[in-house]
Formats: sequence, C-alpha cells, structure tokens
Amino acid sequence: MIPGPYLLYLGNSRDEVGIKTSRGLAVFRPEECVGEFRHDDCPLTLGLTRLTIAQAVAAGAKTLVLGIVNAGGKLAPTLVEDAEAALAAGLHVASGLHHRLKDEPRLAAAASRHDRLLFDVREPPADVPVGTGAPRAGRRLLTVGTDCSVGKMYTTLLLEKAMRARGLRADFRATGQTGILIAGSGVPLDAVVADFISGAIEQLSPPRDDGGWDLIEGQGSLFHPSFAGVSTGLLHGAQPDALVICHDPVRAHMRGVPHFKLPDIGACLEANIRVAQLTNPAVQAVGIALNTSAMPRDEAAALCADITQRFDLPCTDPVAFGVSPIIDRLLQCFAP
Amino acid sequence: MIPGPYLLYLGNSRDEVGIKTSRGLAVFRPEECVGEFRHDDCPLTLGLTRLTIAQAVAAGAKTLVLGIVNAGGKLAPTLVEDAEAALAAGLHVASGLHHRLKDEPRLAAAASRHDRLLFDVREPPADVPVGTGAPRAGRRLLTVGTDCSVGKMYTTLLLEKAMRARGLRADFRATGQTGILIAGSGVPLDAVVADFISGAIEQLSPPRDDGGWDLIEGQGSLFHPSFAGVSTGLLHGAQPDALVICHDPVRAHMRGVPHFKLPDIGACLEANIRVAQLTNPAVQAVGIALNTSAMPRDEAAALCADITQRFDLPCTDPVAFGVSPIIDRLLQCFAP
Repeated sequence: MIPGPYLLYLGNSRDEVGIKTSRGLAVFRPEECVGEFRHDDCPLTLGLTRLTIAQAVAAGAKTLVLGIVNAGGKLAPTLVEDAEAALAAGLHVASGLHHRLKDEPRLAAAASRHDRLLFDVREPPADVPVGTGAPRAGRRLLTVGTDCSVGKMYTTLLLEKAMRARGLRADFRATGQTGILIAGSGVPLDAVVADFISGAIEQLSPPRDDGGWDLIEGQGSLFHPSFAGVSTGLLHGAQPDALVICHDPVRAHMRGVPHFKLPDIGACLEANIRVAQLTNPAVQAVGIALNTSAMPRDEAAALCADITQRFDLPCTDPVAFGVSPIIDRLLQCFAP
Repeated sequence: MIPGPYLLYLGNSRDEVGIKTSRGLAVFRPEECVGEFRHDDCPLTLGLTRLTIAQAVAAGAKTLVLGIVNAGGKLAPTLVEDAEAALAAGLHVASGLHHRLKDEPRLAAAASRHDRLLFDVREPPADVPVGTGAPRAGRRLLTVGTDCSVGKMYTTLLLEKAMRARGLRADFRATGQTGILIAGSGVPLDAVVADFISGAIEQLSPPRDDGGWDLIEGQGSLFHPSFAGVSTGLLHGAQPDALVICHDPVRAHMRGVPHFKLPDIGACLEANIRVAQLTNPAVQAVGIALNTSAMPRDEAAALCADITQRFDLPCTDPVAFGVSPIIDRLLQCFAP
C-alpha cells in the first residue's frame, strides 16, 4: 500500500491527457490529496491548492505521486530533480510511468539515503501464480468494453462509490496504473507475463465471505486485435458473477487500429458472456455504461433510454447520470 | 539462430518426460544431432551415439543443447559443470530451462572467456511490438487444441515435413521452448508480456509472398482457464487462413485443472473459428489431429473415421497415420 495523503505532481505538463492519473486521484480520492505541485510554466490545474514540497510536507503529505505520462518513456531531468527533492524532504515517491524510478540511480540512491520508498506501480508482483479457475467464494463484478479507454475504470470506481453510499460492501480492484494509484494497490495487468494473466486476477481478488462485492477494473476488449488476450485472461481470472459493458457511442474505430470498427453492444455482450462462462457458468450482464461526454445531454439521455429498451439492461452514462439503475439491477439479480 | 549440429544433453535425467526437448530434436532434426551426452547413472537414451564433449567437438558439434526439464527451476551443479566444460571445449550452449544460463555467473564468465554464446530460448525478444491486426500477405496455418499438450507441436512439425516432401514451401514457426530449439528460432510465447502476445506472433510470422505457408505452433487452449489469454492473442496475431484442431481422446480432464473437463471437438472448432475471425474473417478449419498413442491401432483408426464423418473434416493421428488427408484438404481449400 502506498502511504497517503498525496501531493499530486503536474510538473511542466502542458497536455490535459498527460495528467490523467493525477486527475483520477483528485477526482476519486480527494480526501487523500493535500495539493498539487506544478512549475510556473504549467498551465494546467486539478483545482487543488498549489504547494511547494516543503508546504506539502507541513500539510501532512506522505507521498509525491508522479501521476503524469511522459513522452518517450524516459524520466525528464526536471522530474528526477523534483523527485529527489521530495525524497530529501521526507516524502515517498510513487509513479505509474513506464520507466521505473528504481532504475534511475540518482533516485535509488536518494531513497536509500533518506530511508524513503519508491513505488513503481507498473512493476508486476514477483509471485504471481498460474490461474486455476477453481470456483471461489464471494461476488465479483467486472467491467468489460467494446474497446480500450471507454470508461471501464471510471464506471468501476463510480459503482464502488455508489454501492458504499447505499451501505453495501464493495471494493474496487485495480488492474491499470491509474487505478492502482487511486486504490493504493492492484496489479498492472499489462506488465504481467502472458501465462499468468488469469492467475494475477485470482490473486488480486481472493475469496471473500463477508457478503461484499469485488468490483474489478476491466482492460482492453475481446474485439481489440492487440489486447484481446489480456481481456480473455482477465475474464477467466475474475470469474465474474456480473458484467457491465462499457462503450463510447461516438468513437469512429478501435483505439490505435483504424482498420477495425467497434463491435456493436450486442456482439460484445454475447462474446463476453460466452468467454466468462468458462469459469462462471452463471455469469449475467447487469448494465451498459456509455461515455456520452461528446454528446448533447438530451441526445445522451435518449440514447441511454433506447439502449436500455433494446437490450433489456439498464444503460446509463455513469458520470452524467449516475449508476443507480445498474446497482438496482445488480441487487435484483443477486439478493444481498 | 542457434548454430548446429548439436550435442543433446541428458545428463543425469531419469524421467522420460523430462527429456522431451532433447527427444524432440532427435526426432525432428536428426540431421542436426551428432550424438547424446549422458552420465553413467542415466538410464535413458535417444538412440543416438553416446559421446563425450571432446568426441562431440571432434564430430563437428557446434552447440550443446540442454534439452531437459529441471525440477524446481534451478540449474543443478552437475549441469553447470557440464555446460562449463562444453564452453571450454569450444561449444556454444543452448537451454530451454526456466533458469537462464546468463544468470549463472560461472557460465556467463566461461562463455565470455571462451568467446562462446549462451542461448536462453525462454528469453523473449526485447523489441516485441504491439499487435495491429492489419491484414498481411502470405498463408498461415495454426494448430489449436482442446487442451495443452495434445500434440500441437508434433502436428505442426509433421505438416511441415509432409508439405515439404510434396514440394510445397512450408515453414514451422515455433512458439515454445522445444519448438524453438528444433527450429533454431522462434518466440517463447509463455514469457512474453501480456500486452504483446499478438504482436509477438505478427513479428514471428511476417508477410510472405512466395506462395508458401507459415505453419504456426499453437499453445494452450481457449478452454483452459490458466492459458486461454495466450491462445486468444496467438489466434489474433497468427491471422490464420487454416486451423487444425488437436485433441487427446483419452484425457480425463484439462491438464493441471482436474475440475475442468475437455470441451468436445465441435465446441472447440466453433470457438476457435469465431475468435480467429476477428483478424481473418475467411479462416477455415482443414483438419483434426488426434493423439491416439494410448489406444489400440484399430480403435484409433475407427475413431478417426468416425470423427472425419461427423465434422466433415479429415481426422488423423499424425504420428500413427500421417497427415496426408489434412494436406489434401488444405490444397483443396487454398489452391497453390
């Protein structure tokens, strides 16, 4: 677990997409975020108090989170300098970057010198077992999608928040770097060796008998020619009781592969149910989550209503309209 | 490429299953095998001349192949000593073991001292791209299976041999350590990071325009709860024109997971066609390969005839009865 609360790093970032991990933390773990750190030339803000490293330490911060994406996968000199200063000031440093902090000699030395920790969340756990598919106790929901980056993490986190607000036990299980930083733990599935995909998920979401739900963050898509292997292993390892299908209704083609069209929701639903049945024959779909941020609100509402009727499944935009109808259906299918 | 010819290592092995990689080489690359190396306490033989390291060098051997499985994943002291002696005598050393030769300081030092190479075939290539699914030239056949270890490598290699005997261009593309040692190159798919499974296969089997076939060695099974992610990425990356379904008719349950039954051939056929269609909508099954080694020959022949009729696909045991009917069907479906 990464010690909170956090100081969120924006550095010199100039690109809104590049700070999505820091933003995810600010949105989903506001109580863990004491402020943001940015240089004078950074035009972006998360709406948090701008703090120096010394101010953040005084405010109780325990970890500097490098929640940014770096072009080219290398650690920029400024970023290394800032991280080194944070370690010297008594903060741990966490990163979702491809390039590992531990592989940067200056940071490894500074962490050792100041007795602080470096968290590389893209580093897979060392002891991942091979999956077994053996039935395990507890209830699990998995978000799946017609494509990558269609809102699976947001949907899963919003389900957690809304279920907890209803007094239900529900725990987000992270499978990507942003989710891991938000949750404080998880498995970076894109860094696990191929033979261990389902095993990594069995380990992430062990048996539970408290009546609560594990809400597992999906990855990729069965219809994505680059990543369907990951999605398949994730479905088998998750052994889900419930699936939520995520979809972006305005996307022109599969992400990164312009020669592939998105599947329609029905085909996606059917394929995911079929694959999931290998390890849980009783799996059911309980909802459809759309990202309608690019549509007028009335059109978005009409589309949700239309899809709800077409598939006899609650369809909503979790950000715009909430996830209540999906939780209602979940509770209807699986009495607490 | 691993320089041949080879000296095949049995060492102190006492278990027939443990020497399957050395045996695979003796069966499929006899022209590359000058002899076998075994200690006095090894009761096994590949039927090759027993040679000392010095005799093997004199006979023209270029590489000692450690084609054995080691319990516990560690390199035994005797094995390290033998490999060191081979390096000193002028041989390269190749290994399909989990534990890498390069990580054994004595061997790394000896290889450097004697200017010899260490080949760790379980080490994935460093520059694997993400798969794209973009259509590519050439024809590809992939073996798939109802389970792991049902004869996919043997079937693929026997298809290569028989197609070449008919004057066709056909090249085995290895995806496992035994296949890689037999072929001299390939990709150890079980060691590739999850996001790169399909990309690794696209790289292994690049476009070809000489009218020949790439015969890609399958791995795992869509129905195996541990490894279906690998099989899915392999299907997408292979972009196969033709599939051959491999099956063991006497196996009681899925390998390693006793709570899972084998799927029937029809379900396996249908699922593989459906997944393969994502990157090649025109994919066709061209045959069924059984491992009937545990059955009386007449029963095996009757079973093949029965399955041939049931699925309207040529069914054979490649080892017992050859692969001719499958090649006939392949040529019928895909005119040269």
